[in-house]
Amino acid sequence: MTGKIRIKDIARMADVSVGTVDRVLHGRGGVSTDSRRRVEEVLQRLDYHPNVYASILASNRQYLFCCLLPQHGADEYWSEVELGIHDARQAYADFNLTVTLFYYDPYDYHSFGQAACRVAACVPDGVVLAPTAPQHTKAFTDGLAACGIPFIYIDSDIKGEPALSFFGQNSHRSGCLAARVLMLLAGAEAEEVVVFRKKNEGIVGSNQQEHREVGFREYMDRHHPQCRILELDLQAKHEAGDGQMLDDFFARHPGVGSGVTFNSKAYVVGEYLQRQGRRGFNLVGYDLLRRNVDCLRAGSICFLIAQQPRLQGYDCIKTLCDSVVLKRTVERVHYMPIDLLTKENIDFYPR
Amino acid sequence: MTGKIRIKDIARMADVSVGTVDRVLHGRGGVSTDSRRRVEEVLQRLDYHPNVYASILASNRQYLFCCLLPQHGADEYWSEVELGIHDARQAYADFNLTVTLFYYDPYDYHSFGQAACRVAACVPDGVVLAPTAPQHTKAFTDGLAACGIPFIYIDSDIKGEPALSFFGQNSHRSGCLAARVLMLLAGAEAEEVVVFRKKNEGIVGSNQQEHREVGFREYMDRHHPQCRILELDLQAKHEAGDGQMLDDFFARHPGVGSGVTFNSKAYVVGEYLQRQGRRGFNLVGYDLLRRNVDCLRAGSICFLIAQQPRLQGYDCIKTLCDSVVLKRTVERVHYMPIDLLTKENIDFYPR
Repeated sequence: MTGKIRIKDIARMADVSVGTVDRVLHGRGGVSTDSRRRVEEVLQRLDYHPNVYASILASNRQYLFCCLLPQHGADEYWSEVELGIHDARQAYADFNLTVTLFYYDPYDYHSFGQAACRVAACVPDGVVLAPTAPQHTKAFTDGLAACGIPFIYIDSDIKGEPALSFFGQNSHRSGCLAARVLMLLAGAEAEEVVVFRKKNEGIVGSNQQEHREVGFREYMDRHHPQCRILELDLQAKHEAGDGQMLDDFFARHPGVGSGVTFNSKAYVVGEYLQRQGRRGFNLVGYDLLRRNVDCLRAGSICFLIAQQPRLQGYDCIKTLCDSVVLKRTVERVHYMPIDLLTKENIDFYPR
Repeated sequence: MTGKIRIKDIARMADVSVGTVDRVLHGRGGVSTDSRRRVEEVLQRLDYHPNVYASILASNRQYLFCCLLPQHGADEYWSEVELGIHDARQAYADFNLTVTLFYYDPYDYHSFGQAACRVAACVPDGVVLAPTAPQHTKAFTDGLAACGIPFIYIDSDIKGEPALSFFGQNSHRSGCLAARVLMLLAGAEAEEVVVFRKKNEGIVGSNQQEHREVGFREYMDRHHPQCRILELDLQAKHEAGDGQMLDDFFARHPGVGSGVTFNSKAYVVGEYLQRQGRRGFNLVGYDLLRRNVDCLRAGSICFLIAQQPRLQGYDCIKTLCDSVVLKRTVERVHYMPIDLLTKENIDFYPR
């Protein structure tokens, strides 16, 4: 390990002035291509990590980041994302960071537009947004791009848009995995399985869920074309009536033994199965909501697929800090893990 | 978010001197219980994170950590652990850290003792060790404890020993999960499955592997008592002859359709299956060695169970830094995740 490296050592080795090294280190302009290359070579050779914190602390600049997320209750998928955002806000507190949260109704496209206006009115230094349907998201992201405000998609990506970054699952692959484990549980000879949805006036409320189902259906077409895929749309905005709809469904389809939900509310079905004492139904769901995990432990959900929402929230704010504050280059696409959880490994899942 | 907090603000709020706050912040003695409590209360209320780095950088103290690991080739489980150790060494380079690696032959208890002596002779500030059989590990850890040198177990824990910490999988639960997915693949009515082992002169070479098999057998006894568990011990130190042993095994047991390895060499069986064009055998293994992952993608391994070895290596060095350098309290047991990977989610697994 080398001793302490001083900026003047780097300047001497790269044959440039101390001021040039300082400008390269802090991502400022006014450096010739040749000098920059020489400095960067020396930095790389020395594996030099400057104390960026110190210079940012000295600058006293304030930063405002806004997050636009779907409305949600406590203990839902988005509450975990918020915890991660809060973690990052603490971790980067030294950067004089303010993070403000805004919400929209995921089942009402109009609501997204209104909340987006309120975000824009803050003239933030960066935005994290969970996009709604692409056609309703575009006006907002066009506006942000026109103002030079970087934005990050969380949960689902809208390809082709000039976002700084995306954090979320590869929904297509995730749907394939759901199909594979469902058919392991069902047995390759199963004749029918069911997809449980949550909808409000025809709106699924999440691109991620729709794309997972596309991946699921492609896998089923390829590997189990003989298996019928039944559907049951439950109510998105309330649970009243779900029990009756499930009663009716199972009365009409007594032979179906396996099903999947692509939203985070598998517990609606899991708790129903427990209440009915209906054992042996194989249920696969998403996300580690407390009620889902309770069902997993109780055995009414067999597999949960998760994606570290807390880390997702954290990484979005971290990436804005990296780009906006630290002037680092960031990657456009960050696929989150597709984690497969059972009652055996749930206790060791990092959260 | 509060403004910048100065040490003299904390001193005033806790009604102690600036020197007392400084002593509490840096974990030094000479502070009354009452003053310490008052300072800690204020720190907690303010959510204060002092710039510990600055004071450590100023001290110029050097630290030596030694790691004692099993000998291994390139692209093996322990190479990933080493990458993590290297990552941490870079991340904590500011602490004037030297990390030295030592190796022992996991199939030779004598070798462990020799390497342990060489570690002790360095009089390190902290040790990370992958313990061999408990009776052969004890002399070394007793010696470290007597010298006041903190040590961390990696991979497998030896309970009751005064280690600073442990990083590794809960092997029992991991074995249960292996049994569950194996029987999903095999079908509940399967009559026999096989456990493939790697041994040298009767020595398995890893506590972790032995304990996984215990968990596996307990699960099988409870849920599938009718299923026979066959065994095949392959050679630990070379692959020559494995093919013949596998040929003989499958000739003797033509009906067995599912098997598991508890070591990281599932690829020995997976590649054999591919060479033989033997399709439809359900193989479950451990760890993301390149050859294992190739088999997973090719379909000759169905599930791999992983545990983030790189993070494990990183966290061991980080924990020594936390305890030895930063004087923080650390947890005794850190179970690593039990990650379940298939060809669908392998690409998104963080490494």
